[in-house]
Amino acid sequence: MSLTFKVHHQHVASEARSGTITLPSGTYQTPLFMPVGTQATVKTLSVEEINQVSEGIILGNTYHLWLQPGEALIEKHGGIRGFMNFGGGLLTDSGGYQVFSLSNRRVIKEEGVSFKHHKSGEALFLSPEKSIQIQEKLGADMIMSFDECPPFHADYAYMKASVERTSRWAKRGKDTHQRQDQTLFGIIQGGPHEDLRLKSLHDLKAIGFDAYAIGGLSVGESKEEMYRVLDFITPKMPEDKPRYLMGVGTPEDLIEAVERGVDMFDCVNPTRLARHGSAYTLDGRIPIKAALYKDDMRKLDPSCDCHVCQTYTRAYLRHLFKAEETLGPRLVSYHNLYFLKKLMDQMRRAIEENAFYEFKTAFFARYKP
Amino acid sequence: MSLTFKVHHQHVASEARSGTITLPSGTYQTPLFMPVGTQATVKTLSVEEINQVSEGIILGNTYHLWLQPGEALIEKHGGIRGFMNFGGGLLTDSGGYQVFSLSNRRVIKEEGVSFKHHKSGEALFLSPEKSIQIQEKLGADMIMSFDECPPFHADYAYMKASVERTSRWAKRGKDTHQRQDQTLFGIIQGGPHEDLRLKSLHDLKAIGFDAYAIGGLSVGESKEEMYRVLDFITPKMPEDKPRYLMGVGTPEDLIEAVERGVDMFDCVNPTRLARHGSAYTLDGRIPIKAALYKDDMRKLDPSCDCHVCQTYTRAYLRHLFKAEETLGPRLVSYHNLYFLKKLMDQMRRAIEENAFYEFKTAFFARYKP
Repeated sequence: MSLTFKVHHQHVASEARSGTITLPSGTYQTPLFMPVGTQATVKTLSVEEINQVSEGIILGNTYHLWLQPGEALIEKHGGIRGFMNFGGGLLTDSGGYQVFSLSNRRVIKEEGVSFKHHKSGEALFLSPEKSIQIQEKLGADMIMSFDECPPFHADYAYMKASVERTSRWAKRGKDTHQRQDQTLFGIIQGGPHEDLRLKSLHDLKAIGFDAYAIGGLSVGESKEEMYRVLDFITPKMPEDKPRYLMGVGTPEDLIEAVERGVDMFDCVNPTRLARHGSAYTLDGRIPIKAALYKDDMRKLDPSCDCHVCQTYTRAYLRHLFKAEETLGPRLVSYHNLYFLKKLMDQMRRAIEENAFYEFKTAFFARYKP
Repeated sequence: MSLTFKVHHQHVASEARSGTITLPSGTYQTPLFMPVGTQATVKTLSVEEINQVSEGIILGNTYHLWLQPGEALIEKHGGIRGFMNFGGGLLTDSGGYQVFSLSNRRVIKEEGVSFKHHKSGEALFLSPEKSIQIQEKLGADMIMSFDECPPFHADYAYMKASVERTSRWAKRGKDTHQRQDQTLFGIIQGGPHEDLRLKSLHDLKAIGFDAYAIGGLSVGESKEEMYRVLDFITPKMPEDKPRYLMGVGTPEDLIEAVERGVDMFDCVNPTRLARHGSAYTLDGRIPIKAALYKDDMRKLDPSCDCHVCQTYTRAYLRHLFKAEETLGPRLVSYHNLYFLKKLMDQMRRAIEENAFYEFKTAFFARYKP
């Protein structure tokens, strides 16, 4: 195991806690948000900028990098970090989520999943063993078990069989995994069903992982459903290991999940929204392309102290989008990630001051999701 | 006049000279290359990056900024520099070139040019007075007279009438121009014809400008034709004022033009080529998207000391282009501009050491245009 997790402070009135994750590359404070660098780059940003707007850990996508440029070339560069010249912490997912969400004509068997490339249609196959082998070459500090991510509302019988298979796959992945400098996470599935979620966690704990993730959320279910799953599963997860909620999220989801005891997050939202001109502010998101902002001399988020908000007007940012200049998505991506980094920093401080609910109340008094 | 030009060293064996241009924003060494920031941004780059890869002067396009977002909004920001937060030197063109190259259904009259917007088809009108008034609001240190830029091989009678009109337009522009903190350039036209070029220069000198530009080159004529025009016109231009060759250029054209006594250049080439994956190296341009570079662990230009070449492999850069990540065009734009900046620095040093021909010979021994 290459990961050390320490809880520094447990909030008195909720499951929220602050802590640190120590990896070979450094120590990172939790709760933390990881920007997504799908193709060995966080879209529009340089690594210098990533370091300015994150805690220093990013996520890479195994599916995309396996297909382009291939794990062999990345291994030749000493892994994703060498390839993209990133010195921070790195997590790769297993490829499972993309196989189930992007590919078509997939056939799930005990051995693994046969599917077609989401663009070229090429026939491909991914298994628990293969996912781990690819992730070893990609070289992240934190890697994920290959799981099935079924639709949240799949029928119970299917979900039960899927959870059981995911447990068997997790065991095969763990048996395959060799690199001692990587920490392998188990992923809890089970959709909305408490018994299946608990069974999934139980199975994974029996196999024994150094950290656990919650998968199969933020896949189209309602916020109430997501929070309800967190309500029952997070307190049952080991306290002394980081809890990672995959694919979340929005400011409101981050706050609700931290309150329920989650330590780590990733999501494409801040950068994807930015590319469409949607920017976080303390009052909620604003669509910077709108005519409303044509002559707006204010900062993007007047209360933000990031480089973009300190430097540019809304009118200039709107102009960049209207003129289809890539600096527009770049500056808003920078701001949106900074907004989430600051949100995590504020939550961490609020936890340590036992003022988490005060923070949450103040935040939602202003922020309109 | 806000511009002071000093020749520091005149090369003994050619028209080449080194010097400095002092503007309200600072002093800049010549010969110099200005990156093009058409829409108040040098495509893909931040202002911090522009400062790293240029002498510190950029060009903005009046035509584009007049149409989007409009000069009034830019004036409200204190000009283009305030709008884009750029602290260096700035030159705006007159809009004439774009009116003649981008728009359609244009009608040229003595008063000015009526034309249709290159995208929307909206009816528009630009005149010498209007161009100067817009440029005063855009607020550059250096602004350009509104000229006609006819095809290089337009017939002699047309070219003669056009040059005469451009002289009348130059006078009207000068009479309109108010801002003392801006230097207005006259633009020499006349296509390939020595007599018309000399007449154009003579007319402009009679009106009296603080600096002169050579227009109507790099518009599709052969390199030999361009160099021939420079051969006869540059030595006739005032020695004590900067000579600006508009829309040039390539490394080979920059060298040939500096040899012929030009001090200032601008061109979209380095950034436009970069967006298509074409990168300057000391051996010539390389198409980084080519399969040839798939596993190439070398730096983009092994002899370059820029941040990109010090940091990334060709294989990573190719991956970024294949994956359609905007970091690719951004990193290659950075490198290409750095390449030209370094070329200008090397020429300046070679001039001052009276070793310009040695430099030129060594450069072309390796560089394949």
